Amino acid sequence: METAIAFASVGLDRADHIRGDAEALGNLMNWRARLLKLDGIDPQIAPDGGLDWGTLADADPEAELVFLGLMGDGPSASRPCFAQVAPSLIGSVAPPNPRLWAAMGMLSPTDLAIYGGARSLVDWHARHRFCARCGHATKLAKGGWQRSCTNTACNAEHFPRVDPVTIMTVECDGEMLLGRQPRFPPRRYSALAGFVEPGESLEGAVKREVLEEAGITARSVQYVASQPWPFPSSLMIGCHAYTDDKTITIDETELDDARWFTREEVCYAMTGAEDGAFIAPPPFAVAHHLLKWWLEQ
Amino acid sequence: METAIAFASVGLDRADHIRGDAEALGNLMNWRARLLKLDGIDPQIAPDGGLDWGTLADADPEAELVFLGLMGDGPSASRPCFAQVAPSLIGSVAPPNPRLWAAMGMLSPTDLAIYGGARSLVDWHARHRFCARCGHATKLAKGGWQRSCTNTACNAEHFPRVDPVTIMTVECDGEMLLGRQPRFPPRRYSALAGFVEPGESLEGAVKREVLEEAGITARSVQYVASQPWPFPSSLMIGCHAYTDDKTITIDETELDDARWFTREEVCYAMTGAEDGAFIAPPPFAVAHHLLKWWLEQ
Ligand SMILES: [Zn+2]
Ligand SMILES: [Zn+2]
Repeated sequence: METAIAFASVGLDRADHIRGDAEALGNLMNWRARLLKLDGIDPQIAPDGGLDWGTLADADPEAELVFLGLMGDGPSASRPCFAQVAPSLIGSVAPPNPRLWAAMGMLSPTDLAIYGGARSLVDWHARHRFCARCGHATKLAKGGWQRSCTNTACNAEHFPRVDPVTIMTVECDGEMLLGRQPRFPPRRYSALAGFVEPGESLEGAVKREVLEEAGITARSVQYVASQPWPFPSSLMIGCHAYTDDKTITIDETELDDARWFTREEVCYAMTGAEDGAFIAPPPFAVAHHLLKWWLEQ
Repeated sequence: METAIAFASVGLDRADHIRGDAEALGNLMNWRARLLKLDGIDPQIAPDGGLDWGTLADADPEAELVFLGLMGDGPSASRPCFAQVAPSLIGSVAPPNPRLWAAMGMLSPTDLAIYGGARSLVDWHARHRFCARCGHATKLAKGGWQRSCTNTACNAEHFPRVDPVTIMTVECDGEMLLGRQPRFPPRRYSALAGFVEPGESLEGAVKREVLEEAGITARSVQYVASQPWPFPSSLMIGCHAYTDDKTITIDETELDDARWFTREEVCYAMTGAEDGAFIAPPPFAVAHHLLKWWLEQ
């Protein structure tokens, strides 16, 4: 199942051992190296429908370069891949781009995984220019998998964030609890979701979110599937849980509505139909896979 | 199973809705509020063997206060709980404290969960004083569940980190792969582990770690259990996987050794015996629960 989930395929060989080896990394920055072409932080699509790549000569001379990994089989055949943190991105927050979804729909699972990882990393560098501990400037280190404080009295090391998010469906009497956030398109319902907080297990986070958002006491939490989500850098952890009491009390600051749907209603919405009881989450979203998994049980 | 895992119990009602409500939060900071007593960032143990609590009058007047949540049943009976970010902690990195483990061994699962969550949060405030985006000072917001940039041209919001880590056992022909890190006590072997990176699914991270650290190609990754780990703020995600080729090639920068152990060897080590093929991970660690889970299959 995991390969069918958007962004979750294996993109490049991350070649972790090279990141910390300045000499090896320098040796890779040659004419064979590929530079991921980006339009701002969105992907550029090549004529063949895949990601567009250039060479390091295409990079802005002022840009920081991030080592994404190796592409292709075997040490002699593999090509090092980089992305640039363009000066124009520094300090900015990537705005939602409606065209992005169309572009991403054209990409293969491998290209989508490469793009997703690159986007998270480039965005992190663009928004983490200073040391959170002392306020001094930081500089890229370890091929872009670290930033180091330039204040020699501090020397703090900072690592790219990955924020775990639980996303969950809840079942009772063969029906499924789904909710709608105010930002959703009309009639769309999806799985409830929320960030895992410090001091919480996955199971604890699922139960808290379901109670907070829908007033439902969940039990028997089980893991279903995961997905890296590069907006900006979440790890979506999809779970399924049960409850014995269907009484819903929604948190109106989080949700417009939450409802129980029958298996037939979920099944019909998952055909892509827009005239059923609700409109299902799109195939890009791990929520789509949670609903699919449930129907297959 | 989840309640038996250290730090993974539900501690307090996190009362998320209060955090963003300055008036409600202010009303809770009264004579009924409790302040978690800390020795540096380590727990203070009360005469009854539980966490020691004082009142807000015990807080350093210069300290930032973090709202941990509500303790006890019902709105009238519940007591608000806080922890302080003491000025002496600012900018420091908590050193490992051998006495901490003895103190934590005395705490109930609930107290351990409260302490773990508080420690992660206090430590995050102590080490995140400046805005990573613009370098200006930040200030505590939302009861300590956010820091906000004080530069009005930036206004970036920063949230406490939770770093997902995969930790995994691998099985082949009824034997289990375990490794030892250089920092382990003599003869200790445990599950392999590593941080989930941007752009990775959980399953992808497990496979990459096993390949990087032990040269083993893993398949059929399944989730087993999770644990919040407050050193400083990880979410340990325990998984079990399989392989068809037992040939080990260790990454000597990460591991001293990795070996296959029989079920009998794992079973004997898990009794706490120190004269078997290896010494098992301690009950505090989610790795202990991975081994226990495997023996129960
Ligand atoms: Zn610094
Ligand atoms: Zn700022």
